[in-house]
Formats: sequence, structure tokens, C-alpha cells
Amino acid sequence: METRPTLEYAGVDEARDRLRSIVPAGRTELVPLASSLNRALANSITTDVDDPPFHRAMMDGYAVRSGDLGDGGVSLEVLGDIPAGATSNTEITEGKCVHINTGAPIPPGADAVVPVEDTTLAPDGRVLIQVGVAEGRHIARRGVNTRAGDVVLHAPMRLDAVAMGVAAAAGAAKLSVYSSPRIGIITTGAELVSPDCFPEGGQIRNSNGPQLRGLAESCGCIAIDFGVVEDDRKSLCTAIAAALEQSDILCITGGVSMGAHDHVPECLERCGVQLHIRKMRIKPGKPVHVGIAEGGQVVCALPGNPVSAMVGFHLLVKPTIDLRQNLNPFKNPHPVAKLSDAIKPTTNRTTLVPAHVAVEDDGSLHISPSSWRGSGDPFGCINANALILRPENAPAAEPGAWVRFLPTGSIFG
Amino acid sequence: METRPTLEYAGVDEARDRLRSIVPAGRTELVPLASSLNRALANSITTDVDDPPFHRAMMDGYAVRSGDLGDGGVSLEVLGDIPAGATSNTEITEGKCVHINTGAPIPPGADAVVPVEDTTLAPDGRVLIQVGVAEGRHIARRGVNTRAGDVVLHAPMRLDAVAMGVAAAAGAAKLSVYSSPRIGIITTGAELVSPDCFPEGGQIRNSNGPQLRGLAESCGCIAIDFGVVEDDRKSLCTAIAAALEQSDILCITGGVSMGAHDHVPECLERCGVQLHIRKMRIKPGKPVHVGIAEGGQVVCALPGNPVSAMVGFHLLVKPTIDLRQNLNPFKNPHPVAKLSDAIKPTTNRTTLVPAHVAVEDDGSLHISPSSWRGSGDPFGCINANALILRPENAPAAEPGAWVRFLPTGSIFG
Repeated sequence: METRPTLEYAGVDEARDRLRSIVPAGRTELVPLASSLNRALANSITTDVDDPPFHRAMMDGYAVRSGDLGDGGVSLEVLGDIPAGATSNTEITEGKCVHINTGAPIPPGADAVVPVEDTTLAPDGRVLIQVGVAEGRHIARRGVNTRAGDVVLHAPMRLDAVAMGVAAAAGAAKLSVYSSPRIGIITTGAELVSPDCFPEGGQIRNSNGPQLRGLAESCGCIAIDFGVVEDDRKSLCTAIAAALEQSDILCITGGVSMGAHDHVPECLERCGVQLHIRKMRIKPGKPVHVGIAEGGQVVCALPGNPVSAMVGFHLLVKPTIDLRQNLNPFKNPHPVAKLSDAIKPTTNRTTLVPAHVAVEDDGSLHISPSSWRGSGDPFGCINANALILRPENAPAAEPGAWVRFLPTGSIFG
Repeated sequence: METRPTLEYAGVDEARDRLRSIVPAGRTELVPLASSLNRALANSITTDVDDPPFHRAMMDGYAVRSGDLGDGGVSLEVLGDIPAGATSNTEITEGKCVHINTGAPIPPGADAVVPVEDTTLAPDGRVLIQVGVAEGRHIARRGVNTRAGDVVLHAPMRLDAVAMGVAAAAGAAKLSVYSSPRIGIITTGAELVSPDCFPEGGQIRNSNGPQLRGLAESCGCIAIDFGVVEDDRKSLCTAIAAALEQSDILCITGGVSMGAHDHVPECLERCGVQLHIRKMRIKPGKPVHVGIAEGGQVVCALPGNPVSAMVGFHLLVKPTIDLRQNLNPFKNPHPVAKLSDAIKPTTNRTTLVPAHVAVEDDGSLHISPSSWRGSGDPFGCINANALILRPENAPAAEPGAWVRFLPTGSIFG
């Protein structure tokens, strides 16, 4: 149990360090290869077979003894055909060859393959080899790619399609992976109605619930939306306790500011959540809170403004998702792009500006701040795929400056 | 029906142009908002409500008449409290104010919000406002973000989490999206056994099936693996005909070269597939074929070598998936990165080199060719997240050169 004191008004680096030290890796499970895309590998995979498992023809043509050919123009007797999947123990002796297909095992005696394009079949069934060939040509030797016993996929890593192919080749029909985190979502606010209702009076539609579902799912998580909860202590405590039972990570939006109805931090503590971060030096998103529940669940309380909630997700929840799966979310430096429009100096808070990164004709990355109107306006962020990261107390940045960004969506389309 | 002649040995740009003209957009369907992540929007979304729907408090504090305050130090009578979700018709008159929560509607007469931090509550229930405030401060005016009737999400686009939040705010509880393409996968080759078998004799494990499933799923498609089919004409024709009935896009690996057992192109034509591309000037992946079946299904016949199959998928199948959903896969230029190791001159074929792109400490992108041993070796591509794109007849590229790449995986980790 981490017993360091709660970070009050934490900086971005402090918050990262704390996350790294408090987020426990989650459970693992065995999944069939076909269900392993984007899962985080828990145990490294060792192959049980040489690859290729035999000296393998890499072209369709004739398996020959290279020494028989000289500079080409040599006629050879064809002993038969080895299709892929078959084997032949017929020794290839002087003046003889065998027709062979890509992927088939080279028979004993042969030491090269002549592609069919470089040959002519004579009416008598013999083949005229027009070219000379170097020993070993168009043959992948047994074990040249990997040897039985080699580790071919090193945990921890996230499995992509190439890794699935490699796992298949290694005989890993089932893989040990981290369980996909279950992300519980609680949205607070008496003013919120669901998207299929027309908002009356002081109501607005709940956009944070769907947004957080999308963010969670885009990180490969299972989203569980617990809906809108009234912002009174009793309802909140009941909802938090119930949600923690089904969640590995719990996101709550709203109720974290200084208002009379902002009960979330207090209710978290009542539910046994130890607060590790109480507000951050970031803009937007300052009122975020992070804690650990008694069962090890990570709780992120995010502001109710949709842009602030999105920023809090990328800064805190996304790294938590990786850490739960034993992946290091902080291993890569932030990339840079060339700024298209001036941005203002920052205050004493790290500032995150929704922006769009695009590839210019010369292949370089350019970044344009979105035309949003503050953290209450999600519409201005529709085309954003990044957050420009501006340090505390930074001067204005002029067009043409290289600025760091945090990718939040697809950068390359 | 496109009647232009088949492209023989097509260049990359020719193939792109042909794909663009032959791939039909697919069906659309209505999905609930909660199931819309990464789907391609078919109809633009118009909001039915102003956002915000009323003059909205952006801070917790007091709704005041800015003219009452001067430079601050003014005591006001507090008429009550407006929590979020509530409304008040009580007119705020001179010398009066109301306590208000973030998100609540500003009552008549008030024209600014003073944050609670800038106030002191007196024992008699009056509030001391310590500062002056500009008219409109901390108020989001009705409709400032969007107006009822505005298009807020423009089709075609792929829906991300922010778009899901915006759709919710606009009242789009169901969305019209393109159906996720069903990608059929047929792997040919008598030598192939499944990952849970130990390969004997001339056998190897089928790695293309799992790899193509992963590629298809990572593009948001539904993968249907039709398994391994013997490479004889009858089995192939039967399998192709059956797979076309359940597929929007059909990928076949193997059987496309010049060997005696390479029947795929012939069988495709027998099954009514009109071939549009017959081989390409690319390395690896030259033997690819692309055609359109009578039902509009796109068929991509890829080489059996796993790296060639992966290259063919990224060059041909991935754009086809976008085109089926009315998205333009060719709108962005290829990005560049700084080369870490020398690469050889190319021949008369566009060359694609598996490589790893990483962000350096200075935020720039560097790219390192993978240490693979040719198209038969998938193990050397495990860490690849890109293909370096080298044009036909290009000179060698030296370390430090900026080269174009096609992203094939996660670039920013």
C-alpha cells in the first residue's frame, strides 16, 4: 500500500511518477490467438520449431546441384515434382534435378533453385537451364529466421497483426494476456439528460458518458456506463461503491470543483478511496482527482466540462490503462509539429490546446490549434487529433515554432 | 461496371487510381450511439438545440449585475441558490444576486458570474464581492457554440470519442453509418497446418490467416477466416464462390505466382471476378491481383509470403476498406522520418522496407529498417510499425536522409 501523502495541485511530471508507483498490474487470462489483437502479452512466446522447419524453396522452378550448371545452357533430367506440403527423399545426383514449388523442402543433393522463368521445358521432358546459379540461391535454410527454443515475442508488448502471425508460426494457439480493463463511467449532474431526450429548462444532454465510452473503447477497454447520478452524497456514495465492484478503473465526471454540490472527492474518501492526486497544475482540467480504492481499482474524478474531461482522460486514464497491462505509457518522448497559428503565453499551469496535426506535402507535421471556445465547448474539438503541450510559464509561440503534442486520435488518417 | 482493361504490372499510383474508380461504397445501417466508435458516418448530423441551450454559468459563484460592483468591495443580498439542472425566474435587481452553480442558467437581470473564490459570505447571509467583473464574464451565452439546425458532424468522417460526445449533445441517439466491411480470408497451400499442430515433413504453420485477421480487425472490419484451401482448381473455385457470398472484401493468400499450382487468378475469373490489376511494380508483393466480383465484392489475391501479404494488405486492402465506407484513403501525403541506416538503391519497382519509426528526444521522427531476411521472414518485422516507401529507380539513401513512410502500426506508442 502506497502511503505517500496526497499530491496537492500536482504538476504533470509529478502525477506521472505517482501513477507509475500506485497503479497495480491487473489480472491475466488465456485467450485464443484469434482474439488476441491489441491485447498486452503477459508471458513471452517461445517457438517450438525452426523457421523454416526445413531447407525451403523460395521460388517456383527446379531444385538443382549448382555445380552442374556452370554458366548455364545445361540440360537436366527432371526426376519429378515436389509440390509445397510434400517431401521427397530422392537424392538429386549429377545431371538431374526436380521441379519444385515455392515453400517445398529441397531434396537431398540439391543446393539451389533456378526460377522457372530461367528454364525451358524440352519435348522429351528434360529441362534446359539457361543460367548458372550460386550455391544456396533461392533457398531459405532451415532455422535461418528462428530456432526452436527462441523467444519470438517478448512480453510486455501489445499484440498487432504481425505478432499474431508470428504467434501462429510459433505454435501459440493460446496466449497469456492481461485482461482488458473494465472502465466504469459515472456522470454526475442534476442537469444531465440522455441523448434521446430534448433538454428542457436548465437541462443539457449528457455528452461525457458517450465520450468516455468512446475513449475507453479506443484504448481497448470494456466500458461500463453507470449512467447519470444525482450529485448528493448518498446517491454518489451508493453509485461509487456499486461501480467499484464491476470496474478496474472508475471514471467519474463532474462534482470535483469548489461548488456547494461538488461532493465527489469527499464521497470517494467515504468509499475507502485513498486520494493520491488532488487537483493538477493543468489548463484545462485543474480539478482532477486520482485515488486507489481498497481493491486496487484506480479512480479518476474528472471535471464535468467535456474538453476538460477529455484532457484528464488522456493525461491520467490512458496511462493508467497501460500500467494495468504492464506497459510503459511514458517511454516515448512527445513528438513535435510545426505550429500554424500563434498561441498565447501560459500561466503557472501546463496548458493543453486541442489541435489538428496534418501531414504537409513535404511530409512534415503541421499543427493548428482548434477554434474552440473554452472547456465547455466540445464542438470546436471535433477535428482535433492532438493536444499541444505548453509548459508552465511559457512565452507565446509564433507560427513556424516547433511545439510538442500529445496524440489523441489518428494522426496519419 | 468498369470496363477499362486489366492493369498489367501496375505502378502504385495507377493501382490507387483504379481502386478509387472501381470500389463501390457499401451498405449503411443505423447504430446506437454507444456502438458508433470508429464507424464511418454516412449522413451528417444536425443538432436540434442551441448549445448551450441557455445563458450558462461557467463557474461556481454568484450571478450578479456587473454594473452594481464597480471595482468590488460591494455587499449584495443573496436571493437564493440555482443548482445545475434548475431554473429561476426571479429577476436580479439592483443590490441583489443569487448563488449559482457551474452549468446552471443565469437568471433574468444578471449579466456576469463572480467565482466563489472572490467572495466572502457574511454572518447575516449577505455576500461580500471583493472584485469588479466585466459584463458577460463566466457566462457561456445561449447558442455561442452551436445553433439548433447547425450541422455539427459532417459525413463522411470516422467517428471518434469526441464525435460521440458531440452526437450525444446534438440528440443523435442513433447514427447512420456504413456497415463494417466483412473481410473473408482464404489461405491456400497444401503445406499449411493450423497453429495448434506441429508441422511435419514439408508442412509449415498457417501464419497468414491469423495475420490477416489481425489486419482486418485493426481496420474495424469483421474478419471471417475460411481456413486453408488446397491449391487445386476445384477446391479453390468452390471456396471462392462460397466465401464471396459472405464477404464484402475477399483476401486470398498464395497461389498467385508462376508455379504449376498457382491457380488463384484463373479460378477468380472462373468465379466471375473481373481482374483489374494483375501484378504490381512493387517489391515485395509483385504477384498481387485485384478484381471485382459480380456482386461488387472486391477480391485481393495476395502472395503467400507473410511479409508480401502484409505489404499487399496495406497498399490495396486497407484503402479498399476506406473506399467501401466512402472515406478517402489517399487524402494525406505520406509522412517523412529521418533514416538511421543506409538503404540500397531500388530497381524498377517501388520498394517497401519494413521499418520502425520512433520519436527521438528532440521530438522528431527517426526510422530504422527492420532486420528482416526477405519476404518469407515475418520474425524480422515484429517491431515494424511502418513501411519505408522508396520510388522506382531510386538511388541509395544514406543515414540522415528524410524518407517517406506508410504507417502500418502505432507510431506514437
